[in-house]
Amino acid sequence: MLTTEENAILTETGPETPMGSVFRSYWHPVLLSRELEVDGAPQRIRVMGEDFIAFRDSNAKVGIVEPRCAHRGANLFFGRNEQCGLRCAYHGWKYATDGSCVDTPTVEPDLAEKIKPKAAIRALKVEEYGDIVWAHFGESHSALPKFEFAELPAEQRFVSKKFQQCNWAQAVEGGLDTAHFSYLHANINGGEKAPLLPSQGANEPPDTARYRWLIEDGSPRFTVLKHDSGLLLGAARNADNDQVYWRVTQFMMPNHSLVPNSFPGDMNQGNSWVPVDDHSCWIFCFAYHLDRALTDREREQLTNGSGIFAEVDENYLPIRNRDNDYLIDRNLQKHSSFTGITGISEQDAAIADSQGLIADRTRELLGQTDLAVVRFRQMMLNAAKRVQLGELPHGSDRPDAYFVRSGDIMSSGEAELSQLVKEHFGDLAGAALEPCKS
Amino acid sequence: MLTTEENAILTETGPETPMGSVFRSYWHPVLLSRELEVDGAPQRIRVMGEDFIAFRDSNAKVGIVEPRCAHRGANLFFGRNEQCGLRCAYHGWKYATDGSCVDTPTVEPDLAEKIKPKAAIRALKVEEYGDIVWAHFGESHSALPKFEFAELPAEQRFVSKKFQQCNWAQAVEGGLDTAHFSYLHANINGGEKAPLLPSQGANEPPDTARYRWLIEDGSPRFTVLKHDSGLLLGAARNADNDQVYWRVTQFMMPNHSLVPNSFPGDMNQGNSWVPVDDHSCWIFCFAYHLDRALTDREREQLTNGSGIFAEVDENYLPIRNRDNDYLIDRNLQKHSSFTGITGISEQDAAIADSQGLIADRTRELLGQTDLAVVRFRQMMLNAAKRVQLGELPHGSDRPDAYFVRSGDIMSSGEAELSQLVKEHFGDLAGAALEPCKS
Amino acid sequence: MLTTEENAILTETGPETPMGSVFRSYWHPVLLSRELEVDGAPQRIRVMGEDFIAFRDSNAKVGIVEPRCAHRGANLFFGRNEQCGLRCAYHGWKYATDGSCVDTPTVEPDLAEKIKPKAAIRALKVEEYGDIVWAHFGESHSALPKFEFAELPAEQRFVSKKFQQCNWAQAVEGGLDTAHFSYLHANINGGEKAPLLPSQGANEPPDTARYRWLIEDGSPRFTVLKHDSGLLLGAARNADNDQVYWRVTQFMMPNHSLVPNSFPGDMNQGNSWVPVDDHSCWIFCFAYHLDRALTDREREQLTNGSGIFAEVDENYLPIRNRDNDYLIDRNLQKHSSFTGITGISEQDAAIADSQGLIADRTRELLGQTDLAVVRFRQMMLNAAKRVQLGELPHGSDRPDAYFVRSGDIMSSGEAELSQLVKEHFGDLAGAALEPCKS
Repeated sequence: MLTTEENAILTETGPETPMGSVFRSYWHPVLLSRELEVDGAPQRIRVMGEDFIAFRDSNAKVGIVEPRCAHRGANLFFGRNEQCGLRCAYHGWKYATDGSCVDTPTVEPDLAEKIKPKAAIRALKVEEYGDIVWAHFGESHSALPKFEFAELPAEQRFVSKKFQQCNWAQAVEGGLDTAHFSYLHANINGGEKAPLLPSQGANEPPDTARYRWLIEDGSPRFTVLKHDSGLLLGAARNADNDQVYWRVTQFMMPNHSLVPNSFPGDMNQGNSWVPVDDHSCWIFCFAYHLDRALTDREREQLTNGSGIFAEVDENYLPIRNRDNDYLIDRNLQKHSSFTGITGISEQDAAIADSQGLIADRTRELLGQTDLAVVRFRQMMLNAAKRVQLGELPHGSDRPDAYFVRSGDIMSSGEAELSQLVKEHFGDLAGAALEPCKS
Repeated sequence: MLTTEENAILTETGPETPMGSVFRSYWHPVLLSRELEVDGAPQRIRVMGEDFIAFRDSNAKVGIVEPRCAHRGANLFFGRNEQCGLRCAYHGWKYATDGSCVDTPTVEPDLAEKIKPKAAIRALKVEEYGDIVWAHFGESHSALPKFEFAELPAEQRFVSKKFQQCNWAQAVEGGLDTAHFSYLHANINGGEKAPLLPSQGANEPPDTARYRWLIEDGSPRFTVLKHDSGLLLGAARNADNDQVYWRVTQFMMPNHSLVPNSFPGDMNQGNSWVPVDDHSCWIFCFAYHLDRALTDREREQLTNGSGIFAEVDENYLPIRNRDNDYLIDRNLQKHSSFTGITGISEQDAAIADSQGLIADRTRELLGQTDLAVVRFRQMMLNAAKRVQLGELPHGSDRPDAYFVRSGDIMSSGEAELSQLVKEHFGDLAGAALEPCKS
Repeated sequence: MLTTEENAILTETGPETPMGSVFRSYWHPVLLSRELEVDGAPQRIRVMGEDFIAFRDSNAKVGIVEPRCAHRGANLFFGRNEQCGLRCAYHGWKYATDGSCVDTPTVEPDLAEKIKPKAAIRALKVEEYGDIVWAHFGESHSALPKFEFAELPAEQRFVSKKFQQCNWAQAVEGGLDTAHFSYLHANINGGEKAPLLPSQGANEPPDTARYRWLIEDGSPRFTVLKHDSGLLLGAARNADNDQVYWRVTQFMMPNHSLVPNSFPGDMNQGNSWVPVDDHSCWIFCFAYHLDRALTDREREQLTNGSGIFAEVDENYLPIRNRDNDYLIDRNLQKHSSFTGITGISEQDAAIADSQGLIADRTRELLGQTDLAVVRFRQMMLNAAKRVQLGELPHGSDRPDAYFVRSGDIMSSGEAELSQLVKEHFGDLAGAALEPCKS
């Protein structure tokens, strides 16, 4: 539970807010690279309550600038993207990707050179990485975080995004809270909860048996470890023959995660939650194979919605969304699905949205299965305090510490999580791993 | 005319408002019984500015609970209605119709028994009566009001509801103001106002002649009497041969009425106006025969819209509504209908909505035809004063006093209303009938 | 650039605002005459944040009254327009075009004569002129302004209107700022800006060559002169053979303009910008020949959208508007149009809307091509000051001074604008023409 004030600090990322200052210490995904064509249509984006225009110039360089022409304030969305600059449609003033004003044709030539420096507009630092356009909204000069999906060859990954109609923080909490998999994502069979995949009977292999274990053990034990870019979150469930089934999630500050559900052979997957404003966010989704290219069939499945990838329209807006109650089907809910909502991603979206535009965290009954959520909030609130003191928030100066891995692990009995993840992930477990306490 | 402050007191029913406290001393219709199926879809309801989830459990019992799961605040609208309880879709916590938490599967068994009592959520007292789900939103423990329509066998009544896009109080005022029948509901014939039903010539029987009298006498004389649950409102119009045509309406605190227009043989009808918020309300409508079942044809007519029953869609939203100007037809208005709007109910809705989301009662010119409206306001404002003093508002402890009747009466000359209604309605005129003065 | 306070004064025209007082010293177009039929449907209008109902009575006289019936506040939009008055649909009270209450049928006859004078409602002074309904919202008793288009025979003019989704003042600024014609309205040919009409080669006549000059000289020199009703704004561009191409615009207080682009033979055109509220306005448009009737073909073109006339639907709402990004076509923008938006009017609307619902004038870089805009703002802010001192704002007592003319002028070399316009327009240049300085 949080106080009303803490909840506001956690959730609000607009300019001048404490969490807004935390977020502005990091790089953020803002568009998919494929959304911007060379000399193509400028795109409106809204990030943390601020509006920008993004465009890709003749040299394929991306610019993200404030929308306002310095001359008379016309919106550069209507501008003409031409010859290495965006030209305002009103009187032809032109801007390069770095915000510098490179032409003021209404101004007499001798005055123009004096006016241009005054006419520079705000532009963000921009990088492209992993087929995503990243931007930095603040003063800091840290390098881009290093992500495994982005370091791999492009054919080994798939990236997309989806719009979420609630505050970023409760969406992240859903991503870190693997306990809900035993309920929200369950099937119904004969009136009872049932695994997502049908059981394969005796000697079932772990990659299908895990869906049964998720149903059989609905109260996982959480262990949370801290590392240089964030948290490693382990949830242990009883498996067959006294074994333990661990689901290990990675959280990297301030808004990235790597999901579990990744046995060897599975695709690795992750998310970045980027606030549009305090009531909505874009969720960037990435999936990748460590050792091979995605097949066409896999790309098609992810494109049409699968797992953390939603079924979206041409603007990446989910087809099943808050406005249509996610097309909940009560008959389906009675007979074959715990929620009656189709799609893992859509089930996650529905339940996060249902907590309100901003979840009220002042009335809750948290238990041990909520430990991941609790530690996430503490880390974020600590970051807000550090930034107010002029310090760098956790991980913002350690781009290399984002090169970590998540996944599913089987163990026998009492093995310690820190030991287990080092055995399975090696250095990719996260450096300086230590228990995370309040 | 009211002061600005009085108008606010009269109209606002949210939590902690004076009129909200008055309303929370009574039972209110909140759903039609047929809107909730056993183990069926939960329904969102909003009443007096508060949100709830209604569901019918495996034993057909109705629960109305706050929407928020006690665990992490997910909305129980998405919950699974199963085996005598509503189970949250996020982590499976489950609630009975009385709001008690009956399962917390994420919690270790030994802790669960300690957590459950803390996890109880707000639930309203609920009763079903007359094919309607009634709820009590406050502390008082009065019994359900006794309504004649609800005491009759189900085949003798028809109940429905319709959404109204303005404050409840002006909608009630329209229901008590029979004076407008001479205008709002008139026909036009040859450019002049004309009766709703064609005249039958010489020796016309009263049940058609009354429509002519409504047009011929547009300035009825009101008499208002007070009884144990509210007001009896009589409006006298000149009829043929020195007779008087009385239309007698019943108002029962705080938001029910029985309409006139009920000669012997007519259907009796009534309304309950239940605030959704200060800018909209549900109007529950009931029609009943005292002595026989409704025919299929009568049920079909009422279902499709007739009299006080609007033509509604599958969600009980009127087809002709504020957003489409009630499909007003100016050609119809010129040649055959005073308003150009089709339907008595729709005409009433249009004119009430047209007074604003909340009617401004600080600028009015009230005359004697507005006496019913004036007395209604006084009774409501008195109730607000009583409740602030810790007293029970009028009628809230007299459920039996709601067993009253309304109707049309013919009299000769100077008969007193109190005498007339006793002759015609007997005990059902209302007990302790006395003149109602300011 | 303005201060925040000045920008508010310039843009806000609601009741009790300084600019609202300025506007209420003048007559304004509020409807096209053809929008009101004799005894036809009343129309809702909203002007400067105030709501009214307009109707045309049996004698073809137009009334514009407050929407509220004096009796119980029902909205007269639903009223019946009959026999020289608008009758409220609730209880039949009836109002004449001057707001006087002429019938109160619910009131006893002896009281009615006392009530009626109290029941008069607010009515505006109304005149019809030039196929437009004009209204005066204030106390002053000045005569209607005299416009050339309105003085001509009806067959020589065409009037219409279009809805604009931004504050009135930035829309006016777009109308006075002929500099943007070199950009916003340009074509693209081979990747470069190109004239709107194809060049006719050697010895090109001025009426096509001017489109080339507009492209060739994108930094016109402005001269602003003041006259008895407003401003005469001249913009000089280099033409062929050392000639100068002048575009002369008229601005008449507080919200009218006559556009340039009128060589002999062209149609004359003008606009009036009438605030609906601070975030939208109606733009009335008029086109006229000085010497002949418009052809059917010309009327059809203007009806379908041409020049300052937008393509509108049956409610005069532009088909290409803020909500659909004016159907901008980025392929068109790349290859044949500077904006990718079809229609001069739509291009103007897009760029004005893009400045925001209310343009922020506190951050601008104004140059000499913005001189018309600067002088307009000064004249308006001066008017606000005068009205606060109890003086009449400029032009409000000089209806005859609106009889002016605009147009295109060719000159050789150094001719002074005041001399040029007198030569070309004679007395219609504007009386008491003098240089306009800060």
